[in-house]
Amino acid sequence: MFSSLKRFLIGRPLKSNELGEQKLTKLKALAILSSDALSSVAYGPEQILLVLMTVSAAAFWYSLPIAVGVLILLVALILSYRQIIFAYPHGGGAYVVSKENLGLYPGLIAGGSLLVDYILTVAVSVSAGTDAITSAFPSLHPYTVIIAIAFVLFITLLNLRGVTESASILAYPVYLFVLALFILIGVGLFHIATGSVASNLHAPVGTPVAGIGLFLLLRAFASGSSALTGVEAISNAIPNFKDPAPNNAARTLIAMGSLLALLFSGIVYLAYDYGVAPRPEVTVVSQIAEQTFGRNFMYYFIQGTTALILVLAANTGYSAFPLLAVNLAKDKFIPRMFTIRGDRLGYSNGIIMLGLLSIVLIVGFRGQTEHLIPLYAVGVFIPFTLSQTGMMVKWFREKPKGWVLKLLINSTGALISLLVSIIFFVTKFAQVWSVLIFLPVIILIFHRIRKHYEDVGDQLRISESEPALSIEGNVMILPVAGITQVVENSLNYVKSLSPHQIIAVHVPFNREDEALFEEKWEKWQPGIRLVTLHSPYRSIIQPLTKFIDTVQRKASESNYQVTVVIPQFFPKKGWHNILHNQSSLLIRAHLLFRRNVIVTTVPYHLKK
Amino acid sequence: MFSSLKRFLIGRPLKSNELGEQKLTKLKALAILSSDALSSVAYGPEQILLVLMTVSAAAFWYSLPIAVGVLILLVALILSYRQIIFAYPHGGGAYVVSKENLGLYPGLIAGGSLLVDYILTVAVSVSAGTDAITSAFPSLHPYTVIIAIAFVLFITLLNLRGVTESASILAYPVYLFVLALFILIGVGLFHIATGSVASNLHAPVGTPVAGIGLFLLLRAFASGSSALTGVEAISNAIPNFKDPAPNNAARTLIAMGSLLALLFSGIVYLAYDYGVAPRPEVTVVSQIAEQTFGRNFMYYFIQGTTALILVLAANTGYSAFPLLAVNLAKDKFIPRMFTIRGDRLGYSNGIIMLGLLSIVLIVGFRGQTEHLIPLYAVGVFIPFTLSQTGMMVKWFREKPKGWVLKLLINSTGALISLLVSIIFFVTKFAQVWSVLIFLPVIILIFHRIRKHYEDVGDQLRISESEPALSIEGNVMILPVAGITQVVENSLNYVKSLSPHQIIAVHVPFNREDEALFEEKWEKWQPGIRLVTLHSPYRSIIQPLTKFIDTVQRKASESNYQVTVVIPQFFPKKGWHNILHNQSSLLIRAHLLFRRNVIVTTVPYHLKK
Repeated sequence: MFSSLKRFLIGRPLKSNELGEQKLTKLKALAILSSDALSSVAYGPEQILLVLMTVSAAAFWYSLPIAVGVLILLVALILSYRQIIFAYPHGGGAYVVSKENLGLYPGLIAGGSLLVDYILTVAVSVSAGTDAITSAFPSLHPYTVIIAIAFVLFITLLNLRGVTESASILAYPVYLFVLALFILIGVGLFHIATGSVASNLHAPVGTPVAGIGLFLLLRAFASGSSALTGVEAISNAIPNFKDPAPNNAARTLIAMGSLLALLFSGIVYLAYDYGVAPRPEVTVVSQIAEQTFGRNFMYYFIQGTTALILVLAANTGYSAFPLLAVNLAKDKFIPRMFTIRGDRLGYSNGIIMLGLLSIVLIVGFRGQTEHLIPLYAVGVFIPFTLSQTGMMVKWFREKPKGWVLKLLINSTGALISLLVSIIFFVTKFAQVWSVLIFLPVIILIFHRIRKHYEDVGDQLRISESEPALSIEGNVMILPVAGITQVVENSLNYVKSLSPHQIIAVHVPFNREDEALFEEKWEKWQPGIRLVTLHSPYRSIIQPLTKFIDTVQRKASESNYQVTVVIPQFFPKKGWHNILHNQSSLLIRAHLLFRRNVIVTTVPYHLKK
Repeated sequence: MFSSLKRFLIGRPLKSNELGEQKLTKLKALAILSSDALSSVAYGPEQILLVLMTVSAAAFWYSLPIAVGVLILLVALILSYRQIIFAYPHGGGAYVVSKENLGLYPGLIAGGSLLVDYILTVAVSVSAGTDAITSAFPSLHPYTVIIAIAFVLFITLLNLRGVTESASILAYPVYLFVLALFILIGVGLFHIATGSVASNLHAPVGTPVAGIGLFLLLRAFASGSSALTGVEAISNAIPNFKDPAPNNAARTLIAMGSLLALLFSGIVYLAYDYGVAPRPEVTVVSQIAEQTFGRNFMYYFIQGTTALILVLAANTGYSAFPLLAVNLAKDKFIPRMFTIRGDRLGYSNGIIMLGLLSIVLIVGFRGQTEHLIPLYAVGVFIPFTLSQTGMMVKWFREKPKGWVLKLLINSTGALISLLVSIIFFVTKFAQVWSVLIFLPVIILIFHRIRKHYEDVGDQLRISESEPALSIEGNVMILPVAGITQVVENSLNYVKSLSPHQIIAVHVPFNREDEALFEEKWEKWQPGIRLVTLHSPYRSIIQPLTKFIDTVQRKASESNYQVTVVIPQFFPKKGWHNILHNQSSLLIRAHLLFRRNVIVTTVPYHLKK
């Protein structure tokens, strides 16, 4: 039943050699890998204006030079990551680049930040999309958390069905959003050119503004830069592309960068020219759309696709997290299960874990995840900085053809990213200090896990110095509760193995039972030695384990191996189990977990 | 750690032969077995007045003849149960008496009613005691349920420590309560005799009252009879008495009956003479105490001991339930575990089950268990009727010396009990109809359980017609995940048993791994046959079980037994388990529960 539900939800299992069919075309890859970055257009420009507004509306013209700064950073990042894609065509992004060029710790910092960051991406973007929906339909407000969880489950299932299937479904809303924004920007610019809307309402560029300072401008710049989160996703997900994967990934990256640059600058310019000021209840994009179209179909189309893309931004996390997890798991820093492909060839453990953890975050913050945004931005700019720095080191070391230009590009990227990271720490310390706690903790956990895997590897490796068990003979112990068919079965089995010694053990609770049982046994199996362990405290396990320890001590002197053979009957129906004490289960668990004794279970399935 | 906590809470385990020291003297037995019956004095008289009040205060004089009726019923029950004690000196009470004389179904009805009834006793009396406490300290009111649960846990623990220990502790409050009530009644009567309180305030006996009818009087009588619940407890618990158990039990029963009769009639008389009318916020006993002593130390002493005895009434359930459960479990109607004596020689499973179920009731009803009282009274009077009827049949059949008198006593008891049961059904049907549902359900469950035990017995019995497994040879299958120390150990073990065939099985997920592993294996263990099962869907269990099925089909043709030997390593620390997929656990569970294959686990305990 469980398996047919699974079939229904995620589809039939795929063979390993069908993996090729699970690769993405550029068009689909652009849709699912850029939804995070593109969705930031919906809130990035607003973040800049919010900071400037703290001084005065006259300062709004600064949004234009700040946007230019963000665009420069964007170009630097896109070019830098393009170089990373070609240099590391198997993916892995910031983690692999930092680890290989800067060393283990920078790699782990980058990997740990991104791992946490993708969980934040999912939680934050799903919550934002849910907010957009509950704002439109206030009666849904009490169900915010449930709706958000439903979205996470939906996206998780979609990703469990496989990356191509999720891409086919998710491509539509992403491209509709891009289309909607292009129409908005185009019509807006046309209005401005024809003078059909009131424009130029803000103070003109260059107006001196009292109280504006470098610190504030940097804060506005950092806030605007949060629109660039998600730019690194493609570099993690190269293995998902059709061949030639690096070329396709690089082209997709350039396409994403161009779209992002156009939409971002268009929105910033329209906002400035329309004289839009951020208002708590209406978003900047919504104000622009209203001024451009009025409240007609186009307005609702823009609002609807915006809400949708906010939710779907989560999908970028689903594409990048499992692949990053595979890289970390291959290096033994996180559990090995993340390297296992599920029925549909996706890394389903990573997908499920991401879904679960983001639900935990959503529930923990009751859907109010906005104050996680700065944390989430820092979590991206730290690995940005590290990976660009790693590339700098790489070019400097390897000095390939044209390395100076490459070094220059990555240096610019590294410098600006570092700057943004520092600005975040300085200006929003109250919201990001926790990074300084959880990054060391995560790295410690990584190390503990790796240490364990290495220990296990050492111990499992076949070594000449520690030869395996050498067995000269076998002693078999058979705990018997009564004279039954189950015991007879087990006894016949033990006899068929012809060990050197068979000992049947019975644990009576009083002397009368003891004598009675010994007598009955002697009649039934006169050839098999019976040991009775009178248990005045009515425990079966204690005297039994004590006895087994004694036998084992003796046996090991002459390299004899002790096996405990447990007769166990299985009732036909599950509920019957509560009617039996099932000492056999207890005995087995006790013996296996505490002692070095081999345990054989002889099952006897009841038929009625 | 768990075991030292257990030691601390319930004490060191006792040897089975220390059972004699766990027997009760008459004085202690009276305390713990009569707390239920005696506590009813605190509310029984009030129940009568509450019914009469629905007509008019002039009807209160009827409480005197009704009390006489209750006393007659009490005498009949005490004498009847005295005869039961001597006739069934091993205890078992209503269940055994009904089963032996009336047949299986009446026995099960009696047993089922009492089983449920003791759970109700605990829930109702603890809730009533808690109510008394929270009435005195209203700030505790929000914690009613928690306090009630704490009381249940306390009494459960006390009983797990053993019956003598609980009796030693609980005897004090019971005797203090008896003492307090005797002082109250004595001083009250003295006041009346000396005329120092206003008395004779009610309408005199014989005053005609309009609107009084037989139905109402019967209802009042039935309500007053609920004070007699708990009278049967001693007959269930004879095995807890010191030798000669029946004589001691009979004397204890008489003592209890006398105390109950004296206290009950004293309270009824004082209530009538003082002209006390039931008030919602103050109990009748509290009003009598206040009029007798004013609000001084004695008043609070009476109130305190009353609250205490209400809680301790639960203890009667703890004495009788486990012994009734033993009787039902010996007849295979309830799980066998109820016949097992715990560390302190009490039937701890019964004690724990009673505690758990009453907590469930308390939580389910949020501590408001008052409306369970009629249900609880019916649950007592049904077995009363059945056991007395059973005794009638017994005397009639056996006709021992003086049987006519004995028959007469039990007939009176049976008749009045039947009458009370009918009155309950007629007058309080809305509260007791559920008995008609749950009794048949319980009896059905009893039968299902017994049927299962009988089926199991049939199947486990060694029979000539179905001979046990005959084994001509052994095939051992060893699933191997890699070439490791764990596998080498298991392989050495398998070789030492020299079976007819050893098959190592490996499940690779792709063709390259397959070829590589075959090559490595050939170098390492050239003598052992390796089968690789390529798994295109990346499942280990499916191809493995399919293979085992095939081998088993072939093997069974020539009576060969198949054993699957599973190498399993155990990490040193619990949390390490999440780092390993532990396919071995899954494989073992799958094989044991679904197939008839013997499974051997070769443990390998990691040292770091």
